Amino acid sequence: MEPRIKAAIIGYGNIGKFALEAIKASPDFELGGIVRSARPNPKNETKHLGVPIVKDIRELKDIKVALLTLPTLLVPQAADEILAMGINTVDSYDIHGELADYKKKIDHTARKNNTVGVISAGWDPGTDSIIRCMFEFMAPQGITYTNFGPGMSMGHSVAARAIPGIKDALAITMPQGAGIHRRVVYIEIEEGYDFAKTAAELKADPYFSSDDTTVIQVDDINNLIDMGHGVSMERKGVSGLTHNQLMSFTMRINNPAVTAQIMVAAARASLKQKPGVYTMIEIPIIDYMAGDRDTIIRKYV
Amino acid sequence: MEPRIKAAIIGYGNIGKFALEAIKASPDFELGGIVRSARPNPKNETKHLGVPIVKDIRELKDIKVALLTLPTLLVPQAADEILAMGINTVDSYDIHGELADYKKKIDHTARKNNTVGVISAGWDPGTDSIIRCMFEFMAPQGITYTNFGPGMSMGHSVAARAIPGIKDALAITMPQGAGIHRRVVYIEIEEGYDFAKTAAELKADPYFSSDDTTVIQVDDINNLIDMGHGVSMERKGVSGLTHNQLMSFTMRINNPAVTAQIMVAAARASLKQKPGVYTMIEIPIIDYMAGDRDTIIRKYV
Repeated sequence: MEPRIKAAIIGYGNIGKFALEAIKASPDFELGGIVRSARPNPKNETKHLGVPIVKDIRELKDIKVALLTLPTLLVPQAADEILAMGINTVDSYDIHGELADYKKKIDHTARKNNTVGVISAGWDPGTDSIIRCMFEFMAPQGITYTNFGPGMSMGHSVAARAIPGIKDALAITMPQGAGIHRRVVYIEIEEGYDFAKTAAELKADPYFSSDDTTVIQVDDINNLIDMGHGVSMERKGVSGLTHNQLMSFTMRINNPAVTAQIMVAAARASLKQKPGVYTMIEIPIIDYMAGDRDTIIRKYV
Repeated sequence: MEPRIKAAIIGYGNIGKFALEAIKASPDFELGGIVRSARPNPKNETKHLGVPIVKDIRELKDIKVALLTLPTLLVPQAADEILAMGINTVDSYDIHGELADYKKKIDHTARKNNTVGVISAGWDPGTDSIIRCMFEFMAPQGITYTNFGPGMSMGHSVAARAIPGIKDALAITMPQGAGIHRRVVYIEIEEGYDFAKTAAELKADPYFSSDDTTVIQVDDINNLIDMGHGVSMERKGVSGLTHNQLMSFTMRINNPAVTAQIMVAAARASLKQKPGVYTMIEIPIIDYMAGDRDTIIRKYV
C-alpha cells in the first residue's frame, strides 16, 4: 500500500466543505489541514473538524497537493505562490476565455519548482471539456450544444449582489436548448430601494444584458437555495462521411460535491505528471483513478 | 502545416470501408494503401478506389500507422508483426476479458522497435471505457450500467452462423436495463434442417446460453441489416458523502462509421506517444484531436 497523499484545502467555503468530505472519503488521501483567510466567513465553522486550521500553508507539514477552493479571481495568485513552494495545486478556475492565458502564466513557476498544477478541474470547464473533445473526434463535423441547468449560477448570483439596493440574490440558469439560456434572478431588496428600478439596473448589467432575464422579488433567498445543478450536452455530427451520429451526455448533480470530487481526482493525477501546468484534457483518464493501472485496465476498459 | 500522416488500412471489410472514408475526410491524413488477404471477400470491391491495393504492407512506402480493421481474432498477430516493422498500429480488439493480456504481449515488440500500438480503440472498449472511468472518479461509490443496443452484434451473428443448419444469421442485442440484455437472432435455415431443433441448438451454445434468447426464422437476412447501434450508460453514485449524483451517456450511431473514426483519432494520438502499447484511457484526450494544442484548449476546455 502506497502512503496516503497529504492534501491541504485552501479556502473553506461551498466547495471547500465538500472537498473535506471528498478527501476523507478517498482511501488514498489524508487531509493535512485547512488554510483560511484572515477574515473567514463566520457561517463556515471549522472548530470541530479535527484538522489543523491555519492562516498560511507553510504552517502545515509535508503537503503534496493543495486544493484551491477559493473564489476564481483569487485562484491565479494563490496557485503561483503555492507552486513556487514546491507543492502541487488543483483549482477549478472557471473563466473559459482566460484559462489558456492563466495556464501559460503559471507554467513557468511550476516547471522551475518541479511542481504540477491542474487548472480548471471542475465539471465545466473540466469533465465537460473532456466530453466536448470526445464528441469532436468521434464525429468531427457537426455542432455540440452545451445546455446548463436548471441550477444556481454562483457567478451570476455574485454579480447580482453587487448591484446597489440588492441585499441578496440567487441567479438560476434555465436551459432553452441549442446552448441558449435564460436567467431567473431572485432578489431581496434593501429598504428604500425601488424594485422596478433595481431590476432594470440588473438587466442592464453586462453580466445579464445579453441573456433573456427575469427578476423576481422575494423576502428570503435562503428558502430557495438548492445546490443541485445539471448539464445536457448534445452532438449530432458526421463520422467519416456518415451523418446523423447522435451523442448525448447528461448530469444532474450536487454542484459543489461533484466539483470537489473532481478536484480530488485531479490532485491524484497531479502526482503522476511531469512538472508543468495542465488542463484536464491534457492528462490521461487513467491517472485520475485510484488504484493499480493493470487492475483499472482490466476492470474499466 | 505539418505533412499529412500516411496511413494504411489492413483488411477491407465493414470497418475497413468506413476507415477509408474517415481517413479521406481527415485533413491531417492521407491513405497510403489497403492491404487485403490472399482471398478477399468478393462483395468488397476495391478496384475503383484509386489507392494501392497490396497483399503485404511492406509493398507500401512511408506508412506511419496501420489501421487493423481485421476480425478481432486476427488482430494480435498482425499488430505484433507490423509493430516489429517500425510502423504504429491501431486496432479495435474487442474481447474485454483478454485485452489487458494482449496489451502486455505486444508491448515488448513496440518498445523494442520504437513504435506505438493503440489497442481496443472503438466505442466499447474505447470511448465507453473513458466514460466509465470518468463516472467512477466523479462519483467513486455507485453502480454504472452499460446498456447496449438495440443493434447488430457482430460477434453473436458470427457465432450463430457457425451452428450447423444455419445458412445466415443476424443477432440483435436488446437492452433490458441495468446492464442486462436479451438476444433476438434472425436465421435462415439450410434445406433439410429443422427450425425448432436448430433454434434449440443455438440457444444451448455458450455464446447464447446465459442470455434470454429468441430465435426467429426468416427467408432473407439481407433485408434486415442496419448498421445502427447504440449504448446508454447510466451511473447513480456518491461524490464525497453526497448521494444521488446522476450521470448518463447515450449514443445512437452507425457502428462501423464511429469505430473507424475513433481508430483514425487513435492513429493521430499514436504519433504523440512514447514507444509502447496503450488502451484509450492511457492517452490524454487532447492527443486524439487534430490541430494545435493551444487552439484546442481555447476552443474546447
